[in-house]
Amino acid sequence: MKKLFAEFFGTFWLVFGGCGSAVFAAGIPDIGIGLLGVSLAFGLTVVTMAYAVGPISGGHFNPAVTLGLWASGKFEAHNIVKYIVAQCLGATAAAAILYLILNGANSFSASGAGAFATNFYDQPVYHNRSFSMLSAFLTEFVLTLFFLLVILGATDKRANGKFAGLAIGLALTLIHLISIPITNTSVNPARSTSQALFVGGLALQQLWLFWLAPILGGISGGIIYKTLLAKE
Amino acid sequence: MKKLFAEFFGTFWLVFGGCGSAVFAAGIPDIGIGLLGVSLAFGLTVVTMAYAVGPISGGHFNPAVTLGLWASGKFEAHNIVKYIVAQCLGATAAAAILYLILNGANSFSASGAGAFATNFYDQPVYHNRSFSMLSAFLTEFVLTLFFLLVILGATDKRANGKFAGLAIGLALTLIHLISIPITNTSVNPARSTSQALFVGGLALQQLWLFWLAPILGGISGGIIYKTLLAKE
Amino acid sequence: MKKLFAEFFGTFWLVFGGCGSAVFAAGIPDIGIGLLGVSLAFGLTVVTMAYAVGPISGGHFNPAVTLGLWASGKFEAHNIVKYIVAQCLGATAAAAILYLILNGANSFSASGAGAFATNFYDQPVYHNRSFSMLSAFLTEFVLTLFFLLVILGATDKRANGKFAGLAIGLALTLIHLISIPITNTSVNPARSTSQALFVGGLALQQLWLFWLAPILGGISGGIIYKTLLAKE
Amino acid sequence: MKKLFAEFFGTFWLVFGGCGSAVFAAGIPDIGIGLLGVSLAFGLTVVTMAYAVGPISGGHFNPAVTLGLWASGKFEAHNIVKYIVAQCLGATAAAAILYLILNGANSFSASGAGAFATNFYDQPVYHNRSFSMLSAFLTEFVLTLFFLLVILGATDKRANGKFAGLAIGLALTLIHLISIPITNTSVNPARSTSQALFVGGLALQQLWLFWLAPILGGISGGIIYKTLLAKE
Repeated sequence: MKKLFAEFFGTFWLVFGGCGSAVFAAGIPDIGIGLLGVSLAFGLTVVTMAYAVGPISGGHFNPAVTLGLWASGKFEAHNIVKYIVAQCLGATAAAAILYLILNGANSFSASGAGAFATNFYDQPVYHNRSFSMLSAFLTEFVLTLFFLLVILGATDKRANGKFAGLAIGLALTLIHLISIPITNTSVNPARSTSQALFVGGLALQQLWLFWLAPILGGISGGIIYKTLLAKE
Repeated sequence: MKKLFAEFFGTFWLVFGGCGSAVFAAGIPDIGIGLLGVSLAFGLTVVTMAYAVGPISGGHFNPAVTLGLWASGKFEAHNIVKYIVAQCLGATAAAAILYLILNGANSFSASGAGAFATNFYDQPVYHNRSFSMLSAFLTEFVLTLFFLLVILGATDKRANGKFAGLAIGLALTLIHLISIPITNTSVNPARSTSQALFVGGLALQQLWLFWLAPILGGISGGIIYKTLLAKE
Repeated sequence: MKKLFAEFFGTFWLVFGGCGSAVFAAGIPDIGIGLLGVSLAFGLTVVTMAYAVGPISGGHFNPAVTLGLWASGKFEAHNIVKYIVAQCLGATAAAAILYLILNGANSFSASGAGAFATNFYDQPVYHNRSFSMLSAFLTEFVLTLFFLLVILGATDKRANGKFAGLAIGLALTLIHLISIPITNTSVNPARSTSQALFVGGLALQQLWLFWLAPILGGISGGIIYKTLLAKE
Repeated sequence: MKKLFAEFFGTFWLVFGGCGSAVFAAGIPDIGIGLLGVSLAFGLTVVTMAYAVGPISGGHFNPAVTLGLWASGKFEAHNIVKYIVAQCLGATAAAAILYLILNGANSFSASGAGAFATNFYDQPVYHNRSFSMLSAFLTEFVLTLFFLLVILGATDKRANGKFAGLAIGLALTLIHLISIPITNTSVNPARSTSQALFVGGLALQQLWLFWLAPILGGISGGIIYKTLLAKE
C-alpha cells in the first residue's frame, strides 16, 4: 500500500510541477521561464521524488516506465495495474488542483491545442510549425525507448545506482528540451490523460497516441536493454 | 549555539541569494536571468548551505520546515522557537544588506506589489494576471506540503541521504518555477517577513498568509509522511 | 560487442538530444530554449548515458575522446577503429531519425550555414558575427584539450570517480556555452559528420576542421594530463 | 609542482569558460545565453575542475580562496605566493587566448566599462543602473565571505566531502546570479586582473577593489567559519 501511495504522490508532483510550471510561468513575456524552465521543472519533479519516495516504490510515476520495466524483467506482472491506477489517480488529482488554482485567476482559459499543458500532434502550437502524426509518434517512441535505456542502465547492478535518480530526472529534462515543440512532450500516458480530462475535445481525441507510442517505446527499450546491453 | 549560527547564516544566504538575484538581476531587458534564474538561485542557496552547514543544524532555514519536521517527530519541540528566531534574524540581516546595496544604486525603488521580492496575493504583478487569495493559499499550502515530503523522504534512513541536500535544494527551485507568478513564492515565513519589513504597506498586510499557509502545509506534509510513507 | 552497442546508443543519444534540441526548440521566439538550452541538452546526453552505459564501454561517444584516452595510455589501440565506427554509425542513425521527424513538419528547411546543427567556420550565423578559420580551429582545439583534462582527471584513481559522469557531461555543457556562436560547437567529429552528411555543401567542405582540431586537441589533452598532472 | 600546474589549468579554465561565455555568447539577441548562462558557465568551470584537479591542489583557482583557507588554518602560509602566481598566470594565459580568438572575428571591440568581461563599479553597464563603490565593495565582500563559508563547510570532516566540488561550483553560479549587474562579479582577483590587463583604462584603475574586497571577504569568511561554525 505504501508503494501505491508513493506512486500517487510522485505522479501528483510530476504533473503539479511539470504541467503547473508550463501553465503558470512559461509564457510570461520577457521574464517567463520558457520551454527551458518547463523542461527543468519536469526533470526536477522526478529527481526530487526519486530521492524522496524512490526507495519505497521504485519511483516509476509513469505507466510506460512500469511496462518497460516489466518487459525487461525487472517488474512483476501482477503489480502493473495497481501501479498504473495509482499513477493516473495522482496525475488527475494534481490536474484538479492546478485547475482550481487557475480558476482563481482574473483571466483564465484552458482551450485550444496545447492548452493546460495538453499533448497534441499535427497542430501549429509553437511558432506556426506543426509536426505530422507520424513525426509525433516517432518522437514519442524514440524518446520513451531511450528513457528506459537510461532508467535500466542507471539502476543496473554494474552502475553507480546512487546517481540513478539524478540521471533519470535529467533524462526527462533532456527529453522535454527536444520535444515540447513537437507534441508538448508526453512519454507518460498518465500525465497526458490527466490534462486531457480537464480540457476535452482535441486533447481527448489525440490521447490514444500518448498511450500507444510511449508504451511501445518503453517496452522496446526494456527489450533492447535486456537483449543488447544487460549482463547475461 | 553553533546550530543557531548555522541557521542564521543559512537563512541569510537564502534571502541574500534568492531575493538578491530577484532584485538585481531578474528584470534586466534581454539578458536578465528572469524567473528561471531566480528559481535556480533560491534552490542553490539551499543546495550550497545544506552541504556547508546542514551537518551542524540540520539545515532548515525556514520556520515551516522546522515545524513540519517537528510534526513528523524528527525535531524536538523545545528548539522550535530558537530556530525560528535565528532564521528570522538571518533573513532580516540579509534583507538589510540588500537594502543598503540597493540604496547605492543610481535608480532605486522598493514600492508596489512584489517590489523587493515581497510576496503577495490578488495582485496583477506578472503580465496583468492576478490570483485570488484562495488560489495563493492553496498554492503555498500544497507546495510546502510536498517540500516536506521531499525533505522527509530524502533524509529517511531508507534513502540515499548524501543526495538529500541536492534533492531538497532542487525541490525549492522547482517550487519557484511553478509559483513565482502566483505569489512571488514564499513557502518560507522568514523569507516573507524580512522582505515585508523593508517595504511595509501591502506586503505587511498580506504577510499573515505567508506564515499561515506554509506552516499548515509543512505540518500537513510532516503528518502525511509519518502516516502514509514512513516505515513503521 | 556490448561495448560497441553502448557506444552506438550513447552517440545516438548525444546527437538526437543535442542536435535535436537545437533543430526543434532553440529558435522558437520568446519561449525557445536558446543556446543555453542546447548547451544543457548536449551535456545531459552525456550525463545520462555516462550513468546508463558508461560502465559498459567507458562512455566515450566521441572519436576525439577515444583518441585522447589512447594518447594518455588509458585505451588500447586495437579498439580505436571499432569504437569510432560505432560512434559514427550511432550519430548517423540519430541524424537520420531527426531528418525524418523534421520532414514531417509543415515547414522544413535544412540549408545554409549552421542548418540542421551543422558545424562551420567563417560564417556569420549568429548576429552577423563570424570567426576566422584560425579562431575556430583554436577554439575547438583548446576546448577538446580541456575536455580531455576533465575526463582524465575525473576518472583518475585519485578522484571521486562516482561524480565523473556528472563532471564530464557538465563540461560538455560548459563547452557549448562558450563556443556555439563560434562554430556551433563540435569537439566531436562523429557529431559533426552525421549532421554534415544530411546537409552537404559547406558543411561537408568544412568538415575536415571538425575532425582535425578536436583530435589534435584530444591527443594533446591526453599527453598533457599524463605528463604534467597524473601521478607517476 | 603538480599542484601549481593544477592551479594553472584550473584558473585558465575558469577564465576561459566564464569570461569566454560572457564575451562570445551572452549578448546574442533572442537566443543568447544571457547572465544566467554566464553564471552557469562560471560555476561549471569550478565543478568540472574540482573533480578533475581538485584532488591534486585542493582546487582554489582564486587568490581570495587561498587566503581565506589560510585564515581558517587550512592552508600553509609558505605556499600562498606560489599558488597566487600560478592562478594569475593561468588566468592571463586564458585571457590571451580569448583575445586571440576574438581578434579573428569580423567585428571586434573590447572597450568600455564591462567589456571583455572586466569588472567595474559605479558604471551603468546593465540597463542604465549603476551601483556606488560602496555598494560594489559590500557586494564583493559579502559574497566572497559566504563563498568561503560554503567551501569550508562543504570540505569539513563533518560534511559529505564528495559533494564539495558540486556545492562550491554551484555557489559560484549563485554568486554570479546575484551580482553580475552590480560589478560583473569578481570574488576572484586573478579573474579580474587577467581581463583588466587586456582592456586597460578604467578596468585597471578600478582593479584595486577586486583585490581588496574579495580578499577581505575571504579572510573574514575563514575567520568566521573557524570561530563560529567549526568543531572545536
